[in-house]
Amino acid sequence: MLLYFCIMKIQNDILLRAARGERTERTPVWLMRQAGRILPEYRAIRAKLSGFKELVETPELAAEVTIQPVDILGVDAAIIFSDILVIPEAMGLPYSMLESTGPFFEKTIQNSSDVSHLRIPDPEDALGYVMEAIRITKRELNGRVPLIGFAGAPWTIFSYMVEGKGSKTFSRAKRMLYTDPILSHQLLDKITESTILYLQAQVKNGADIVQIFDSWAGVLSPAQYNEFAIPYISRICSAIKDVPVIVFAKGAFFARAALASLSCDVIGLDWNMDIAESRKLIGPDKTLQGNMDPCLLYADYETIKKETKLMLDAFGSGRHIANLGHGLYPDTDRDKVRCFIDTIKEYQK
Amino acid sequence: MLLYFCIMKIQNDILLRAARGERTERTPVWLMRQAGRILPEYRAIRAKLSGFKELVETPELAAEVTIQPVDILGVDAAIIFSDILVIPEAMGLPYSMLESTGPFFEKTIQNSSDVSHLRIPDPEDALGYVMEAIRITKRELNGRVPLIGFAGAPWTIFSYMVEGKGSKTFSRAKRMLYTDPILSHQLLDKITESTILYLQAQVKNGADIVQIFDSWAGVLSPAQYNEFAIPYISRICSAIKDVPVIVFAKGAFFARAALASLSCDVIGLDWNMDIAESRKLIGPDKTLQGNMDPCLLYADYETIKKETKLMLDAFGSGRHIANLGHGLYPDTDRDKVRCFIDTIKEYQK
Repeated sequence: MLLYFCIMKIQNDILLRAARGERTERTPVWLMRQAGRILPEYRAIRAKLSGFKELVETPELAAEVTIQPVDILGVDAAIIFSDILVIPEAMGLPYSMLESTGPFFEKTIQNSSDVSHLRIPDPEDALGYVMEAIRITKRELNGRVPLIGFAGAPWTIFSYMVEGKGSKTFSRAKRMLYTDPILSHQLLDKITESTILYLQAQVKNGADIVQIFDSWAGVLSPAQYNEFAIPYISRICSAIKDVPVIVFAKGAFFARAALASLSCDVIGLDWNMDIAESRKLIGPDKTLQGNMDPCLLYADYETIKKETKLMLDAFGSGRHIANLGHGLYPDTDRDKVRCFIDTIKEYQK
Repeated sequence: MLLYFCIMKIQNDILLRAARGERTERTPVWLMRQAGRILPEYRAIRAKLSGFKELVETPELAAEVTIQPVDILGVDAAIIFSDILVIPEAMGLPYSMLESTGPFFEKTIQNSSDVSHLRIPDPEDALGYVMEAIRITKRELNGRVPLIGFAGAPWTIFSYMVEGKGSKTFSRAKRMLYTDPILSHQLLDKITESTILYLQAQVKNGADIVQIFDSWAGVLSPAQYNEFAIPYISRICSAIKDVPVIVFAKGAFFARAALASLSCDVIGLDWNMDIAESRKLIGPDKTLQGNMDPCLLYADYETIKKETKLMLDAFGSGRHIANLGHGLYPDTDRDKVRCFIDTIKEYQK
């Protein structure tokens, strides 16, 4: 057992140290959606399969695409290749991923009977394919960099389960918050319980750090975010004991002070949140993650280098994990992504 | 001529007085997208036509649906029924409005030749149908309430002209800002010139106040918004001399202080901008407009009344025009809309 832990000690643990607020020799970097269509190696695997879901559900292949960006891009962490929608599916709402329009749920949650029929799944069983992908990835990474696990935040999962698909406004999901707050809380509670078990299982199977994605935070008012989002994220943060937790609530500029009170280690920023203002709102006790506009990577190399350095200057000597403020866009040139990463790795604090 | 102005004096001018910062006996109210699918009377007219564009381009009918919410809902202003995309069309990029997916441009702007081919249209000619709709509306309103004219802000118009359709990220439009800032400024300049002429013509034909909609403000970083959006909105504000100007930059929470420096009278807020914080950032010299979440109108009557009063309390005795923080959603119950409006009209400051 001792030998096992010796072998598995992470060689490049700069991301974990930065997350915990320890001093690091440079700023660590990884990118949301780093495992994906920007890599020809990913597209080659994806092309052999029936679709996105087959890749998510085939542990060997999920592990392979998880590791690709570590080899090809030189990022300081891998993030398990999966989807936040595996949770609603394991709870009883299967999803499909349509090439043109994104996620789609045949069945959605509309009333209390729908909520009562939802399971709180045993992740080792219902989400065993994710756990296996994590175990394979850990074995094949062989301690090179940490592995990030993740889940959607309860509000974001709720919004898909009620709306049934992506939306600009998520007005159907928000309608339930207004028309039936009690039922909304019941559903959020079940999602939260499922998510806690799921993230705890990810950690048990090898995730070294986890990120909670609240992708649709930005459609709620501050009052609704305080009522329907923060308390559930808080419960998840408190239930994850052994690894650092990153919370990324996209668009929740209004909730930065509230997020600072969570028992998490890292708070993600998107690119329209001012860095200095965010640090002031969040205080010195959290690591900040982000926050370059993914569209910067369409620019020429000089501009990418210049803007990346300006971002690093703005984060200053404080706790920082470099990332984009959103997932990589699929049509981004891989060499531009490398330029962003290399600029960060070469930057002198 | 004197007689004409006497006849046309606006009877209910509370919205104009609030915009200019004069004291009003109560808070004025109108709703973005008040003329539209929530009204059966609108749907009846719309059903007889080939599509949305035919309604926009038929002045008698556009005037009719413009006036409907004044009669049916009791709002304090009419807003001319039209679309922000009439400007790109008049400049040389025709659009179609697809029932399922929204606006679509066959031809988009990709290079300097595309930009140089764009016209700066004479609005009385290329947009004569809007001017005629304004004249008919003014005649038929007969001075009951003011008429709001409007246009898209240059960045939002740019984003459609380059992207060619709606988008969650507008990454193609943003790509141009990063890859060719000079061309981007040339295009923004042409859009701005066209918009100034267009809004001036709306005022000349009878608009009593104008609103500039920056619908996609929220996808830009603060630095890009300062470079590619604010200066052009500023030029438009300075060019509109005789009527109050409302600027609504959806999602531009980070730009509130910058918007405060514009030569405009009213700044719109969306529902995730805190009211007290916005007042502090913007200062006392602008009227604020907004900012209820449109989804509140899905709630029961008691909740609508309670939340509407809380919103009015939060705006306090300061300069305020009540509105939603976004356009009305089409599936909103008309009686709930009336409840929102009546609560505002009955509220004692």
